[in-house]
Amino acid sequence: MSPGRHHLQIPGPSNVPERVSLAMARAVIDHRGAEFPELTLRVFRNLAEVFATRHPVLIFPCSGTGAWEAALVNCLSPGEKVLVFETGHFAALWKEVARKLDLEVVWVEGDWRRGIDPQIAEDHLRRDPDIAAVLAMHNETSTGVTSDIAALRGAMDACGHSALLLVDAISSLACAPLPMDDWGIDVVISGSQKGLMLPPGLGFNAVGEKALARAAGATSRNSYWNWQAMLDNNRGGYFPYTPATTLLYGLDEALAMLLGEGMENVFARHARHAAATRAALAGWGLENVCVNEHEYSNSTTAILLPETCDADRLRKMILERFNLSLGIGLGRLKGRCFRIGHLGDFNDLMLAGALSGVEMGLELAGIPFRKGGVNAALRFLTGGEA
Amino acid sequence: MSPGRHHLQIPGPSNVPERVSLAMARAVIDHRGAEFPELTLRVFRNLAEVFATRHPVLIFPCSGTGAWEAALVNCLSPGEKVLVFETGHFAALWKEVARKLDLEVVWVEGDWRRGIDPQIAEDHLRRDPDIAAVLAMHNETSTGVTSDIAALRGAMDACGHSALLLVDAISSLACAPLPMDDWGIDVVISGSQKGLMLPPGLGFNAVGEKALARAAGATSRNSYWNWQAMLDNNRGGYFPYTPATTLLYGLDEALAMLLGEGMENVFARHARHAAATRAALAGWGLENVCVNEHEYSNSTTAILLPETCDADRLRKMILERFNLSLGIGLGRLKGRCFRIGHLGDFNDLMLAGALSGVEMGLELAGIPFRKGGVNAALRFLTGGEA
Amino acid sequence: MSPGRHHLQIPGPSNVPERVSLAMARAVIDHRGAEFPELTLRVFRNLAEVFATRHPVLIFPCSGTGAWEAALVNCLSPGEKVLVFETGHFAALWKEVARKLDLEVVWVEGDWRRGIDPQIAEDHLRRDPDIAAVLAMHNETSTGVTSDIAALRGAMDACGHSALLLVDAISSLACAPLPMDDWGIDVVISGSQKGLMLPPGLGFNAVGEKALARAAGATSRNSYWNWQAMLDNNRGGYFPYTPATTLLYGLDEALAMLLGEGMENVFARHARHAAATRAALAGWGLENVCVNEHEYSNSTTAILLPETCDADRLRKMILERFNLSLGIGLGRLKGRCFRIGHLGDFNDLMLAGALSGVEMGLELAGIPFRKGGVNAALRFLTGGEA
Amino acid sequence: MSPGRHHLQIPGPSNVPERVSLAMARAVIDHRGAEFPELTLRVFRNLAEVFATRHPVLIFPCSGTGAWEAALVNCLSPGEKVLVFETGHFAALWKEVARKLDLEVVWVEGDWRRGIDPQIAEDHLRRDPDIAAVLAMHNETSTGVTSDIAALRGAMDACGHSALLLVDAISSLACAPLPMDDWGIDVVISGSQKGLMLPPGLGFNAVGEKALARAAGATSRNSYWNWQAMLDNNRGGYFPYTPATTLLYGLDEALAMLLGEGMENVFARHARHAAATRAALAGWGLENVCVNEHEYSNSTTAILLPETCDADRLRKMILERFNLSLGIGLGRLKGRCFRIGHLGDFNDLMLAGALSGVEMGLELAGIPFRKGGVNAALRFLTGGEA
Repeated sequence: MSPGRHHLQIPGPSNVPERVSLAMARAVIDHRGAEFPELTLRVFRNLAEVFATRHPVLIFPCSGTGAWEAALVNCLSPGEKVLVFETGHFAALWKEVARKLDLEVVWVEGDWRRGIDPQIAEDHLRRDPDIAAVLAMHNETSTGVTSDIAALRGAMDACGHSALLLVDAISSLACAPLPMDDWGIDVVISGSQKGLMLPPGLGFNAVGEKALARAAGATSRNSYWNWQAMLDNNRGGYFPYTPATTLLYGLDEALAMLLGEGMENVFARHARHAAATRAALAGWGLENVCVNEHEYSNSTTAILLPETCDADRLRKMILERFNLSLGIGLGRLKGRCFRIGHLGDFNDLMLAGALSGVEMGLELAGIPFRKGGVNAALRFLTGGEA
Repeated sequence: MSPGRHHLQIPGPSNVPERVSLAMARAVIDHRGAEFPELTLRVFRNLAEVFATRHPVLIFPCSGTGAWEAALVNCLSPGEKVLVFETGHFAALWKEVARKLDLEVVWVEGDWRRGIDPQIAEDHLRRDPDIAAVLAMHNETSTGVTSDIAALRGAMDACGHSALLLVDAISSLACAPLPMDDWGIDVVISGSQKGLMLPPGLGFNAVGEKALARAAGATSRNSYWNWQAMLDNNRGGYFPYTPATTLLYGLDEALAMLLGEGMENVFARHARHAAATRAALAGWGLENVCVNEHEYSNSTTAILLPETCDADRLRKMILERFNLSLGIGLGRLKGRCFRIGHLGDFNDLMLAGALSGVEMGLELAGIPFRKGGVNAALRFLTGGEA
Repeated sequence: MSPGRHHLQIPGPSNVPERVSLAMARAVIDHRGAEFPELTLRVFRNLAEVFATRHPVLIFPCSGTGAWEAALVNCLSPGEKVLVFETGHFAALWKEVARKLDLEVVWVEGDWRRGIDPQIAEDHLRRDPDIAAVLAMHNETSTGVTSDIAALRGAMDACGHSALLLVDAISSLACAPLPMDDWGIDVVISGSQKGLMLPPGLGFNAVGEKALARAAGATSRNSYWNWQAMLDNNRGGYFPYTPATTLLYGLDEALAMLLGEGMENVFARHARHAAATRAALAGWGLENVCVNEHEYSNSTTAILLPETCDADRLRKMILERFNLSLGIGLGRLKGRCFRIGHLGDFNDLMLAGALSGVEMGLELAGIPFRKGGVNAALRFLTGGEA
Repeated sequence: MSPGRHHLQIPGPSNVPERVSLAMARAVIDHRGAEFPELTLRVFRNLAEVFATRHPVLIFPCSGTGAWEAALVNCLSPGEKVLVFETGHFAALWKEVARKLDLEVVWVEGDWRRGIDPQIAEDHLRRDPDIAAVLAMHNETSTGVTSDIAALRGAMDACGHSALLLVDAISSLACAPLPMDDWGIDVVISGSQKGLMLPPGLGFNAVGEKALARAAGATSRNSYWNWQAMLDNNRGGYFPYTPATTLLYGLDEALAMLLGEGMENVFARHARHAAATRAALAGWGLENVCVNEHEYSNSTTAILLPETCDADRLRKMILERFNLSLGIGLGRLKGRCFRIGHLGDFNDLMLAGALSGVEMGLELAGIPFRKGGVNAALRFLTGGEA
């Protein structure tokens, strides 16, 4: 109940724009009625544009975790091998989902500060023709590291491997380019509460032809997540079970906003705010969790604190004092880093506000740092586009 | 875009009250933040009161279909037998879910006009000690028939059968009494968009001790639906993955409304509107799909039309002419019946409006019927409580 | 806090449609900013279309009472004579406003059951060439009597009188035709909370050339209400003082809804619901306050109860029991009548609900009446257009 | 349609908090119904607390300009003398209102950079025992100068003058202390869209006993603004004409927020943000329009640009580039200054965002200034309370 607007700068859920909030307050209509497909067919069409694909994008009432599971239980069979890269906390969680579903996981360890190494991927793939699918995080939300999916695809192509490529774009969709069809991705997985600017509650699977063909023969038991039933019903604008109507209203509005802005502009805006955030980080003399420049994330920046500092104490203080929520350090980064989400419905002054909160918090918490991060960010923002 | 308020009288989603709609328009907060448990722990507590249980009620971002699956994959193992009663379309769908999950279904056929016969249930159970679970629809939404769950429990007890009792209360929760603990139900399954007055998007599993114990040894593969992970996180007011925050806001408000009215009053209100609807039905000289008086539903009334009439044509005309959505006939009742939902945030004059729309529609569609149904309903409503 | 939707069937404020409510929840913008005129110039244009005029329509943050005052203090001078007809409570109130502003009122008494008699008006005008303005209620909200403004204009023309014609359309705008320019009305006065479907808070003056010319020489002191200052600022899309921005958002949306439906359709819809209400009234054997058929109101029907009955007790009971608000009897009709508002965002089933509430209330209150009013209304509604 | 949240930092309307926006989206109820006084009597009670008075606070559907007029036409008679001080644009406008209402204005010229000089006031009053009322702006919104009302009262008391003291608190109510009763103010005038955090549409007159007594004998013609009619109706929780119901819902919520925070805390928060803004101003090396430290405003800071710069060009650029609305220079300050509103529902990071927008705008517009204003503000905000 603090005065003024809360600054929600976790790496998702992101701030829901007013247009989307108000659209979701509209009365629920009959999801079996004649006017429902007017809404849904437009949503499907626009969603495919945002996913940069001519393939269907399926919408499940679920979290992103559910969308992971949906992808796995449709196109893979128990015992099949999947190659997964340890980019961070969420990669580790996805691996656990795969294991619970009795997939055999080939786990490529990592240090949580780098993206997927295409060379290592290629080595694994060459060694192991049985790998049925490669599971890749596009943006690892826990570290702010974006993997080069085009390069990964290149590695797969280089060895002529037939594995499916499943990409988690939960925190990168509508934040950074991920042209599904151009890059030969078989399944793109995402959620509603990040770049799509909605509250949480919807998960997505964009499904290419190869994945769909593989699904026809796969033997994982599934019902709720079944692609084919969803596809069959979606054709007419309906769903195999009651959809989350009000979230679809919001999605319709959010897609109109994104396409109205233009996806290239949306990506440029995210890149610009990410670069401004890194300018602040450099100004503070703090360390980015992400070590490779070409893997910087458009949506999230994770900031390592000196070893003696407690990031959770800092976050708590910033929340209480400045009404700003920052992302927690997860898994092995717990207490060691905090994350700034700069994604979704966001602009320069919201970023300036958030960075100001961080700078003041660092000062008040006695963290060793240089002032001047905010200044550096403002300098970047006035200096031109990223 | 017709003038005036749409009358949404399908048997769910039901009308979302303004308090709930506006609560859901509030800004999303950090689901890992310190204030989140204030919301969730209150929701868990109030939810248990509405489910009439001291056991935990788990909330999944999903449809009711997902909540079915959640129940099955937690406490049952592939190959185990489940006893399912053909009460109507949704029982048949649940059976299909069970089959897809490799459960062995013992399917007790029915005529879609009666509830579960406890005697038949008992016969099956005596014959078959291997049945691992009994799957029962409390209110079969497709027919407006409510089964006597206490009697079913009695039948199970009579033969000392150890099967779990899983009850679908999707369209009966907060409409008709279903005291989970008192009636010895092991799992109650429900959804957000009916008696709980929310938009669709949340599914529920209320889980008793016996079901939880059984889950510990069950071998169905599952991850998203896993009860134990949910329970472990819920204890502190958190979730194993991002919850549907705005739907939780709405749930919090809806629970406050229900408990503020008092569950006994809520049930009496639903019973009264159901009886008034049947008075209209009798006035029109039309036939209730439900043939047994003691199985009349508090939330839905399905009305059979004379064989020569097309119920879908009637529904379409009523929608276009009177801006009233009625429930479609499903499965083998397609085109043969329409359904009136009289559940959720509802009152006498909303009912009078809906019944007026039906009466005028019957007239305009040239369906053979007697006028006077609305009159009969009004007479009932002024005559006293049901 | 009764369950279900409140039925607000007073003769205004009318029910605010969801589109309008949600539009008004949008963030306030700078009323001196460059984007403001985009909103306001569209509003001015559409407003003129609804007022059926090519003249400017001025918007004041005020109630309808304020809009009365605005009209009087602009084009009249203290001591000038105005001719006012006692059609009911609101005519009497407007007369009082005129007196407080030191106008000399020629008060034509009436019995509150008839509209303005053009012959009597003509007689007065012939006798009194000094009358500066004729003040006429188009629809007298307290009685549900609509005066024939075209005939009144005819009477003024017949004697070649130069008086201004000021018409109160507070409860008739967007309910019944009142073509300002075609009928030679000098000022039309209205408010936001009736046919325009907004909450209360805006008053309107549509101002013709003759009135504007008269205003140039009038000597009533005024500042807030000044037409010229408003006109000067409106030209560019601005206001002489801070406008009620969110109500303008709602107005913009409401105008789009009305023009989307088409004014002829809007009028026909109101006429149809008024006729259906009178069918109910006849069915009940109760008496309309309005005695002349050609003066029946499109927006309000006032129902006289037998002398021994207390209309306020009836209204209170209907409110408590059925969550339906009906209009109070005002002034000399206090306790003797109740009023049904059937205006604004309204449809057949909302009317059926409201009439059902009245019929049940009459029964429960022991008012002597015949049942069958609702039936008669439904018969009318299925029988075709009014 | 720029991405992200608009920063509305004009000196009112201020940002409407979500709680208030959503409260105003609630359905309109019968303003003559039994439940209406529950709302209104609570509003009256809480409003008096915010005005720091035990006298009635009257609510008019109008802008602040209307509330000025309301005060003047109730307690003054045409030809009576009022003493008005030229503190800036709004003082000049109020003077014009007085003149239009035929009051005789004694106009004390000023340079728009200083508040009311109590000594000059005293001189005038001593010279002129006929002055019927002193009209004082508490906070002159056009300049960000707050006059010392206690000292003005002292000056009036010093010469034992019987004039009424009418104070405009439009942009100071709930921003800076103005204890009406303690300071002997006869009428406090305010509006909804500033410290009260509502959209525009309501004006207020808090009326002391002496003013009320004077009103009994005053002869200005008035009707809409009449205090006595309002008082008579308010007693029971009603109004003499239809009130702006949804704005009252919002007011109820806003008052609960303010009193929940505590008025002392509200004032301290405003003082702190004002001081931080001045720290930024000093950092930039720019000039405050307000020259006297003890007259700095809690709600608005007006910033003078070097003579060669065009403030409107700067504002336009900041709006287009950073989605930030700043206040325009008014009257003789047109083009020469811009104003930052730091009032209402506001916090540190919203301020940091706004100041960042100004700093970047100054840079991009090529205005001669020193960087470092944002830094200075952050330093102030971390350094402690003002």
